[in-house]
Formats: sequence, C-alpha cells, structure tokens
Amino acid sequence: MLEDKNQERTSLSELGEFGLIEHLTKNFTIKRESTVKGIGDDAAVLDFKDRKTVVTNDLLVEGVHFDLAYMPLRHLGYKAVMVNLSDIYAMNATATQITVSIAVSNRFPLEALEELYAGISHACELYQVDLVGGDTTSSGKGLLISVTAIGEAGAEDLVYRSGAKPNDLLVVTGDLGAAYMGLQVLEREKEVFKVNPNNQPDLSMYTYIVERQLKPEARKDIPVLLKQLGVKPTSMIDISDGLSSEIIHICKQSAVGCNLHEDKIPLDPQVISSCEEFDINSTTVALSGGEDYELLFTIDQEDYPRIKGNPNLSIIGYMTPENEGKHLITRANTAIPITARGWNALKDD
Amino acid sequence: MLEDKNQERTSLSELGEFGLIEHLTKNFTIKRESTVKGIGDDAAVLDFKDRKTVVTNDLLVEGVHFDLAYMPLRHLGYKAVMVNLSDIYAMNATATQITVSIAVSNRFPLEALEELYAGISHACELYQVDLVGGDTTSSGKGLLISVTAIGEAGAEDLVYRSGAKPNDLLVVTGDLGAAYMGLQVLEREKEVFKVNPNNQPDLSMYTYIVERQLKPEARKDIPVLLKQLGVKPTSMIDISDGLSSEIIHICKQSAVGCNLHEDKIPLDPQVISSCEEFDINSTTVALSGGEDYELLFTIDQEDYPRIKGNPNLSIIGYMTPENEGKHLITRANTAIPITARGWNALKDD
Repeated sequence: MLEDKNQERTSLSELGEFGLIEHLTKNFTIKRESTVKGIGDDAAVLDFKDRKTVVTNDLLVEGVHFDLAYMPLRHLGYKAVMVNLSDIYAMNATATQITVSIAVSNRFPLEALEELYAGISHACELYQVDLVGGDTTSSGKGLLISVTAIGEAGAEDLVYRSGAKPNDLLVVTGDLGAAYMGLQVLEREKEVFKVNPNNQPDLSMYTYIVERQLKPEARKDIPVLLKQLGVKPTSMIDISDGLSSEIIHICKQSAVGCNLHEDKIPLDPQVISSCEEFDINSTTVALSGGEDYELLFTIDQEDYPRIKGNPNLSIIGYMTPENEGKHLITRANTAIPITARGWNALKDD
Repeated sequence: MLEDKNQERTSLSELGEFGLIEHLTKNFTIKRESTVKGIGDDAAVLDFKDRKTVVTNDLLVEGVHFDLAYMPLRHLGYKAVMVNLSDIYAMNATATQITVSIAVSNRFPLEALEELYAGISHACELYQVDLVGGDTTSSGKGLLISVTAIGEAGAEDLVYRSGAKPNDLLVVTGDLGAAYMGLQVLEREKEVFKVNPNNQPDLSMYTYIVERQLKPEARKDIPVLLKQLGVKPTSMIDISDGLSSEIIHICKQSAVGCNLHEDKIPLDPQVISSCEEFDINSTTVALSGGEDYELLFTIDQEDYPRIKGNPNLSIIGYMTPENEGKHLITRANTAIPITARGWNALKDD
C-alpha cells in the first residue's frame, strides 16, 4: 500500500456521470445471445424467447456489508456480483446479465472505481454474464453498490423455497462458517494494524477462510451438477445470512419442520482450528455466520442414491411435519429449537 | 407536522430485515400475467414469452437527489418508481415489474418506511406494474433507494437513442423546466422555515411547478399515443438531466447534429412567471433543469402530418448532418453551440 501514495489520482468530477459509466464499462464485452442491447440507452433489451426470466437485486453498503480497511475494491466488485448470482443459482437458473449502480463520495478517485469495475469485469468473464446497465451517482458519504442480476431457466427446472415435503433430505453444498471466521481474522488484523501500522500480517494459516470472506464464489456449478445427476431439488435457497436463517425460510415457505444434525454440518479444518483459536463454537458459526454463498436444498428420498458420496454435497438432516418444529440434533443427541440468529442488518448497535 | 410528535413509532430493529420487507410489501397485489413469482424467494420469475425484455436501474440518494425537509416520503416512493418507469417508456416499451431495495439508517421509524411504500404502491397501481423483489438493509446515514424496472416490447416497436437521421424532426412531450422551478420554490421555503418555523408557506401560486418536482409522472401514455398515431420514432430518450444533455446523447449515439429552436421550447406559464420572479432565464432552465421526465424523440419528416397539432407534442427543432454541430437557434436568430450543463451528480461542491 505504501507504494501507492504517489500514484496519479483522477477526480471523478473531471469525468462527470456520463463519462464515468462509459469509462468504467468500455472494456466489458457482450457474452450472451440474450443480450440484444446493453449499456448506453435508457434501458437494456433482453430476449429470453420462451424461457422464464429470473431477477434479483441486492445492495452492499460501506460500513455495513464491507470495510475498505481490509476489503480491496477489486474483491468488493467481484463479491457484489457473486452475492446476486448466488440468488439466481438458488432458483436452479442460469445467470445471464447484471446491472450495477454505484453511489460514491468524492473521496474516491477514478482509479479506485476502476479497481472496483476490474473486479466486476473479472466476475462477468468467469461467470459468463453481461453487464447491461447501471447508474453512477454521488453519495454524501461512503460507497454503495446495487446489483440486479437476471437469469433464465426452463419452467420445469425452476426451484422455489416452497416445495420441501416431510421426509425430504436436507442437503448443503461445500462447507460452512469459513467466511465468518475469515472476517474475524481480518478484524483482528485491522486492530493490530491500528496499534502498529508497520506490522505485516501473516495470514498464511488462514488463506482459505480469508479468501472465503474476501472473494466468495457463487455455486454456478450446482444447477449444472444437479441436471447431470438427474436430481431436481424440491426447494432451494442460498446461504447468505447463515444456515439457521435459511432453514427457517424453507420451513416457513414449505410449511414443514426440520431435524438438522450437528455432526453432519460440513466444516473446513481451518474453520475448526480458527474457532478453537478464537474460542467460538463452530456450530454457532455455521448456523449464524452467513456469507458462505453455498446452496441449501431439499431432495426427495428417492433421489438419495443419485447424490450419495458426491464430494460437493453433504446431507445434514431431513424435513419433518410442520408441527414437529425445527430442531438441531446435537452431538449429545439433544434436540434444540433452531432460531434465526443470522446477521440482522437492521439491529441497533 | 406538529401533530405527529406523539404518534407511535416502531423501531426497525423490532422487525428485522425479513420481517420488514414482508411487512412493507404485504398489501402489494400482482397485476401482470408475466409475473410468475414475485417477492419471497431468491429471485422473481418472469415470463415474457416471445417479446423482448427491457431493464433499467436508478439510485436515489438522500442529500443528492432529494431532501426530506420538503419531500414527503410518500412522494419520494412515488417519484423513485417514476424515474425508472420513464426509462422503460423511453424505449417505447410497456413497464411491467419493479424491484425496490432500500438502505436506511435507524433514525427512520417503521411508520416512515410505510409512507415510502405507500407511495411505491400507489405508483404500482396507477402504472400497473408489479413489485417483484428487493432488499432492505441498513445505512450508516440517510436513506438510499434503488429501483430496477423491467418492461416488455415487440422487437419491431423498440426505439433506441441511436436511430435519428438528418432532417428528422425533434419532438418533446409536455413542457419543460417546471420540476427545476418547483425545486427553487421549495428551497426558498425551506430557508424561510429555518428562520421562522411557524410560517405557513403559501404555495398556491406554484401548485403546478411544485407538483412537477414532488410528484412527477412518467409518460406511460406516449408509447400508446404513438402507436395510435401510427408513428414510430427514429430515436427516443427521457428527459431526466435536462434537454441539452438528452439532445447531446441522441446526437452522439445517432451521429447527427441538431438545430433546436428556442422559441419552440414548451414552457408552462408558471415556469415563465417564476423564472421572472427568481430572475433566471427560462431557456436555461429548460435546457439544464432536469427531472421533467418528459420524452424527447425524433421522427421522420414523412410522419409530420400524423403528429401535427397534437396538444401533447411540440416540434422543437430538426436533426442535421453530424459535421454541422448541435446548436440552439435563439429568438434573435443566433446559433449557439449546445453544451451539456445538465445536473452533474459527481461535481465537487
């Protein structure tokens, strides 16, 4: 960071709103046949023929969702796209286009926004989505990013949150809790940095969990894998707020209960070791940590042989009749009610 | 306002993020056949069959785009929708769905957001669009609204900014400058209020221009009217930043020049009288004021008989070859180059 101080910095006001969006998006290419018209008119034009269109929107706010003290802008741009694509994949759909709008204060030079858009561009390339619109405006304070993601699916492939039935198996992709533990490590390093700015942090023991926080990946591969396996989930949701919140969403919308088995929750060894180091319960982290952007879904028991042993998928419980409630079955075989303790963006603090 | 002080105020943290969006949107009904699934899953599902989909997104930031000192929240919600629908109509398309995301600080009680959503709901009813998604999150400071609007059109009906040809007529709907002059009146009343909070403003002389600022209407009627008249514009854009900015956009994207006749610019009598009162040039206001949300379009000269005398439409100039430049022809018959002086959201101030 020290070398950056003498770099040229271009004031945003030199470009103006129209110049800015043109400048930031000029190297984005069109990748999707369904993109008829991208950036540069009043609206983008998309052509989905006879397939269903899916659309989602999320806001990321500085000081709430990210801290630029340890979140590089390039990673932030990437992550803002992932957060939204994850919602599209959670519909068992293909993500095809995004719009990105930013509100930014004048403390950001052009070069900072170029970094942000480099991350957005990288995400667009890897995930094969087109940037088709957006807005740039000023904010009194801080940076805010609004992403809308659009996708498509055949009507027969779409999966909602509402289709789970009693006895369905509850399945999660990847592993949980790493993004939250990565955040703990980064927060600690920030405090160390405040005391001694010359301290170079050694994060080599935490590479996986830090990367899960700074550069999460949306599970583009899962709708494809499920199709290959011949499995259509009965319900699906992405894990942005923590496992317990997402289970409650599925249970509520499907009118079912759930037994979640603590010993089946997939944890990376770095999550286990960092939980020990920070003296935090790893199950609590998996249940409430959030930001893992894995997919949680339910399948009919008949489909069990199709997913059995797949290294991407862990069966962590099963659905029950609604009146049996939602429970965590602990390692000691005790049933504890599951309550929403996911990240609450609107809590007083 | 004085009577409001003892009203009950519900803290946002009592509801939490999920409760909040559910609470605010529970009275919204589905109006569009193309809305397969609205709020309540990871993404909305839309079905446009073989028609083209259009999509646009805009951010409104407190302190930049609106001032809650004189902008009632209900009007703000309405206006946030209009700003986006206007972009859809500027494609000669029909608006069908919106998503609304808000970032809000804890200083807003639930009742304030209910007012905001009452305005959004009113706009959805009048303009027959469905609210199909969104996100609520906290902001450190202030209120920010992000709206994505989605629409549809037949491929043959879509109008871009890029189709204007030399000799095409330049046409504008309604009248210009009123929203800007309404803002001047409101800013003045705010200063008066600061000095004497008991002063009751008399805005009866300014009803039209104040309403244009606080409760603008998008021109839903114009794509319908053009179809009835059998006219397809060669290019079209909505007037959000001011006439000069929008003319420059069309000229740049169509590679043409333009002669705009000052004496043809439509002005409401209240704009003329308030410009005299504030000692501002009314042409400057029309050129640079912005926020009128009228439509600016070009038509082939052959279509002139079809629009002639229509009270909704004013012919204000004609397009020229690109090398002839973009000029305002003044009342004194002098040609002045048109430069972008629209509202610049990123200027230093």
